[in-house]
Amino acid sequence: MTGRGRFITLEGGEGAGKSTLLAGLREHLQRRGVDLLLTREPGGTALGEAVRAIVLDPARHDLCAESELLLMFASRAQLVRETIRPALDAGRWVLCDRYVDASYAYQGGGRGQPAGRIAALEQWACDGLRPDLTLLLDLPVADGRARAAGRGEADRIEAEADGFFERVRATYRARAAAEPQRFRVIDASQSPEAVLRAAIAATAHLGATA
Amino acid sequence: MTGRGRFITLEGGEGAGKSTLLAGLREHLQRRGVDLLLTREPGGTALGEAVRAIVLDPARHDLCAESELLLMFASRAQLVRETIRPALDAGRWVLCDRYVDASYAYQGGGRGQPAGRIAALEQWACDGLRPDLTLLLDLPVADGRARAAGRGEADRIEAEADGFFERVRATYRARAAAEPQRFRVIDASQSPEAVLRAAIAATAHLGATA
Ligand SMILES: Nc1ncnc2c1ncn2[C@@H]1O[C@H](COP(=O)(O)OP(=O)(O)OP(=O)(O)O)[C@@H](O)[C@H]1O
Ligand SMILES: Nc1ncnc2c1ncn2[C@@H]1O[C@H](COP(=O)(O)OP(=O)(O)OP(=O)(O)O)[C@@H](O)[C@H]1O
Ligand SMILES: [Mg+2]
Ligand SMILES: [Mg+2]
Repeated sequence: MTGRGRFITLEGGEGAGKSTLLAGLREHLQRRGVDLLLTREPGGTALGEAVRAIVLDPARHDLCAESELLLMFASRAQLVRETIRPALDAGRWVLCDRYVDASYAYQGGGRGQPAGRIAALEQWACDGLRPDLTLLLDLPVADGRARAAGRGEADRIEAEADGFFERVRATYRARAAAEPQRFRVIDASQSPEAVLRAAIAATAHLGATA
Repeated sequence: MTGRGRFITLEGGEGAGKSTLLAGLREHLQRRGVDLLLTREPGGTALGEAVRAIVLDPARHDLCAESELLLMFASRAQLVRETIRPALDAGRWVLCDRYVDASYAYQGGGRGQPAGRIAALEQWACDGLRPDLTLLLDLPVADGRARAAGRGEADRIEAEADGFFERVRATYRARAAAEPQRFRVIDASQSPEAVLRAAIAATAHLGATA
């Protein structure tokens, strides 16, 4: 375990239902008395939100893959030190919408940055912090796109082609298969209620509440 | 050599005279017919200037050293690919106000980030691009501070204590001693004219102009 609290991350492709699940899981955990912190990546701090604005800006179509990777880790390094680690040390639980697996999936699988490069960054940028539990919402790419479609202009990453998102999905699934203790893969084509039930069941082993 | 053009970087502590030398050296090289591109770090691209605003903002006093390092390399990776490399490939010369040595000096020496960490980033983020010539303007810390003093509110890095800048200076000097072929150390306590003459002499071996 990461400290006195618990660190849970939500992962998955665009429109898989992470934000929807986050809201449901928050309600469940808080009803059980958990002192909970919600955050997201990139973002979650003043620095992270500034980085988020850069990385998702559709006008920045020429951002190179190396810079994208470095920016994601810049946001993450600050988020771990400023927000997540202090919360865990204080006994709070942290629910984070995306974390380091997203870099393997998007900057690695999607953009082709080597996994070893990402692993080297993870080692020092994240201060050794790994999730106690990662919920992977797995959904066919086309279904996620259809769900996300109604949301207005696509951001810079949402504007990628299907092949990109197929590689993202495949990388997520491979990581989940390689670390079955940490990951729970949830079939995100189910109803929101069924997804939430599966997520709640997956958190059961994290122990009694604070 | 880096390609068809030549890549010259200017390094040194705060107020050492880099910007002043840049202007003089530009005039000299252009008079000799060199097709010259001037740029700076962090900055030099739209991404880089956004990163510069984050990194130098005095309000961001809680920016962690890891994020600072990652942001500097994010700016650099984009600058190399978008600006410096294309210019060199087109036969232009590039004069850059700070480059990767500044990360060893400031994020390494100054903030204590391990040199091996910086070297690993350099390997892939800079696309293998190293300067043909690096001019190090060496000046006692107090003298540089006195020169820079009249310039209004200190940015986030200028606001550091003297010990920080002593480590920056020592790291620069050590790097210059380790790579005498690439570095020329210029005594920056001389007059601007003498500094410029020394810089011009140092560029002589870079060959005839385009
Ligand atoms: N299980 C589900 N079944 C059907 N629709 C869903 C389900 N979960 C979420 N949705 C709907 O799909 C859309 C995208 O959901 P949500 O915003 O939660 O996804 P997300 O994974 O957070 O997306 P993004 O990656 O863009 O942040 C929303 O309109 C949401 O109401
Ligand atoms: N050789 C010199 N002798 C005396 N004063 C100098 C000399 N070179 C520059 N100056 C003056 O010192 C001040 C700082 O110079 P300059 O801005 O060129 O330094 P810099 O290295 O670019 O600083 P920074 O690191 O803050 O960008 C300016 O007021 C400039 O006119
Ligand atoms: Mg979401
Ligand atoms: Mg200057």
